[in-house]
Amino acid sequence: MTSPLEPKTFPHLPTLKGVHIKTAQAGIKYCDRTDLLIISFDKAAEIAGIFTQSKCPSAPVEHCRNILSHGRARALIVNSGNANAFTGKKGKLAVEQTLKAAADQLNIAENEIYLASTGVIGEPLNATRIIDALPNMINDTVENTWLEAAQAIMTTDTFPKIITQSVDFGGDKITINGIAKGAGMIAPNMATMLSFIVTDAPISSQILQKILSEKVSTTFNSITVDSDTSTSDTLLLCATGQTEKTLKPLNDIKDPRYVPFAEAIENILHNLSLQVVGDGEGARHLIEVQVKNAKSKNDARCIAFSIANSPLVKTAIAGEDANWGRVVMAVGKAGVEADRDRLSIWFGDYRVAVNGERDNDYNEVVVSDYMKKDHIVIKVDIDLGQESATVWTCDLTKDYVEINGDYRS
Amino acid sequence: MTSPLEPKTFPHLPTLKGVHIKTAQAGIKYCDRTDLLIISFDKAAEIAGIFTQSKCPSAPVEHCRNILSHGRARALIVNSGNANAFTGKKGKLAVEQTLKAAADQLNIAENEIYLASTGVIGEPLNATRIIDALPNMINDTVENTWLEAAQAIMTTDTFPKIITQSVDFGGDKITINGIAKGAGMIAPNMATMLSFIVTDAPISSQILQKILSEKVSTTFNSITVDSDTSTSDTLLLCATGQTEKTLKPLNDIKDPRYVPFAEAIENILHNLSLQVVGDGEGARHLIEVQVKNAKSKNDARCIAFSIANSPLVKTAIAGEDANWGRVVMAVGKAGVEADRDRLSIWFGDYRVAVNGERDNDYNEVVVSDYMKKDHIVIKVDIDLGQESATVWTCDLTKDYVEINGDYRS
Repeated sequence: MTSPLEPKTFPHLPTLKGVHIKTAQAGIKYCDRTDLLIISFDKAAEIAGIFTQSKCPSAPVEHCRNILSHGRARALIVNSGNANAFTGKKGKLAVEQTLKAAADQLNIAENEIYLASTGVIGEPLNATRIIDALPNMINDTVENTWLEAAQAIMTTDTFPKIITQSVDFGGDKITINGIAKGAGMIAPNMATMLSFIVTDAPISSQILQKILSEKVSTTFNSITVDSDTSTSDTLLLCATGQTEKTLKPLNDIKDPRYVPFAEAIENILHNLSLQVVGDGEGARHLIEVQVKNAKSKNDARCIAFSIANSPLVKTAIAGEDANWGRVVMAVGKAGVEADRDRLSIWFGDYRVAVNGERDNDYNEVVVSDYMKKDHIVIKVDIDLGQESATVWTCDLTKDYVEINGDYRS
Repeated sequence: MTSPLEPKTFPHLPTLKGVHIKTAQAGIKYCDRTDLLIISFDKAAEIAGIFTQSKCPSAPVEHCRNILSHGRARALIVNSGNANAFTGKKGKLAVEQTLKAAADQLNIAENEIYLASTGVIGEPLNATRIIDALPNMINDTVENTWLEAAQAIMTTDTFPKIITQSVDFGGDKITINGIAKGAGMIAPNMATMLSFIVTDAPISSQILQKILSEKVSTTFNSITVDSDTSTSDTLLLCATGQTEKTLKPLNDIKDPRYVPFAEAIENILHNLSLQVVGDGEGARHLIEVQVKNAKSKNDARCIAFSIANSPLVKTAIAGEDANWGRVVMAVGKAGVEADRDRLSIWFGDYRVAVNGERDNDYNEVVVSDYMKKDHIVIKVDIDLGQESATVWTCDLTKDYVEINGDYRS
């Protein structure tokens, strides 16, 4: 069943010069659907990346981390169905075999090839499936769309996640296209989340990395589906510099084009991360948790995640129940400074609790009506300082249990 | 529906001299069931206690903490249906009113009366319901049983939790009776867990506190249902000293009676905490997570709780799926030292992964059969040190979501 939070329409993503998209049915796990994606660049693109914080990362993540300092990419190869994680020597071998075959056939260097895998962990990945599919994909003259790219990397996602934005880049127009996949194991840092963003603007890898590192904290690192962190999270940002008219490279943060471009990337990351949460496994409601006036930024984030990861808060929202008592519980268990008698809590615009007790104006009928909305905002004022944080999550429904109780079968 | 993990039989708890148990239907929230319990002592009992670590504790918890240094108790008054938590000044007033009425009627001091409340949070508790029920309870000459006491404090529990043990106390027999309630919001430290343990042995409050503080860490503070921590957790241990024959008080840890008594308390706490987990909301499987050979005790505990709190691990167990990939994921997200390529994982006696990949001898049919058992043991060898930890949890089922999605309605 498709998430009720699926966007009403999908944007059309323009083609980017010198960027080739190919998808295929490699039969890695799924039947009757694409599960392999290659995005290749005619000329080496500048690249930046951020990866899972898991202490047990997948073999592809280790490869990407190893080559990132090189800063150039000619191809991204992504498969769904198998994460090639916790596969030991076999996993490393599958990475090596894939790299060798792709480097030979695309005639590029192995350290210009980025790999990402998503799906079941612990099962050996049969690299032959990928290698056998490469020749047809590379030789096929028909290009696939960005939408098809997003579809090929889905696992338990119920809809593809895509976005595009054009940016005024010092008087010239540049384009940014992005895709993502998410679903379960979405938590900071990064989650079972894959996202690939490509712009035709000319931007150095150092600048790309700076922007990505800064903007990820309030976007992809501020979402959680189930507090579980994947072994495979990969976020890559590529800049081809292949605009119609040749533009001067951006490699200085004082360049006036820096801020609008960085803001556009933030917007792309924000939008994709909300699509990921909105398609959290079994999600029926998007939950935005705003924590205000905490003593420190870290306290604010800690409380916000404590609320967003609380199974009792998430099941209450699934039940469309304005159970602010559970919000208090989650504030209390966060373990950082909070004073019960100074707390105020809102659902949407409705203040339900103030100074440690139920708001006298609390109207259960009105608030219950609000709880039926797709997007629920929980605001908590800690009243101990001036720092804030916002995180996003989804509700915890029976469908989450259903999906994850027989994901492998 | 009763948990399939309910004990097959309930033990008979002997009456303890000078201890009076009274239960009543006070109509605090529930109809047609008891919701109020008084345990009173003819002579002041020695008492020790441990309470929730929540930064937003309930009004009764604050009261108990305030009087604990006094170390003597004449009565415990416990209600279910309303936790009197996050109820601000009204909550404090309800505590004061209850204390005053009980002190007057029982003719004892307010600092000898311990209160505990469990149920919905954020709703004002109507103390009148309790106060009005007191006279009949106090004057009733019919005593209730320990089983009835355990029943009166249940919320979403599906079975009452009771245990008794007799101990050789330097050649004399003493008895320890314990009751508990749990269900949701069970996580360290303490959870929405109430437990009251009474012995007829003569033991000083200092000794009781020492034993309780030590033994709680491997018992009630090593269980988790949903990682949520309640505002109301209360564990009290009382010693009346009212044995048939007058015994010499135990007030020195070098007393040879200390160790067997402390071990008996540990056993009581262990047994009750497993009953609590086995009755976790919607639980169908008890999960024991053993982490071996971690670098430090703290690392071992951190990894064990990361596994035990992972929704993806817990839904896999609900689906009777030996999905050890998710166990690896949970090890990785714990954030403490772990080396993927040194990890080994067992389900029961079956090693499923070794040195970072699937065990060659892994037999899915045999392991799948094991996963049908009530009690699942997940063992993880980190192979980086010598420290261990064990925690217990239950699986995450659709019933958990059902129960918590409409708990208030």
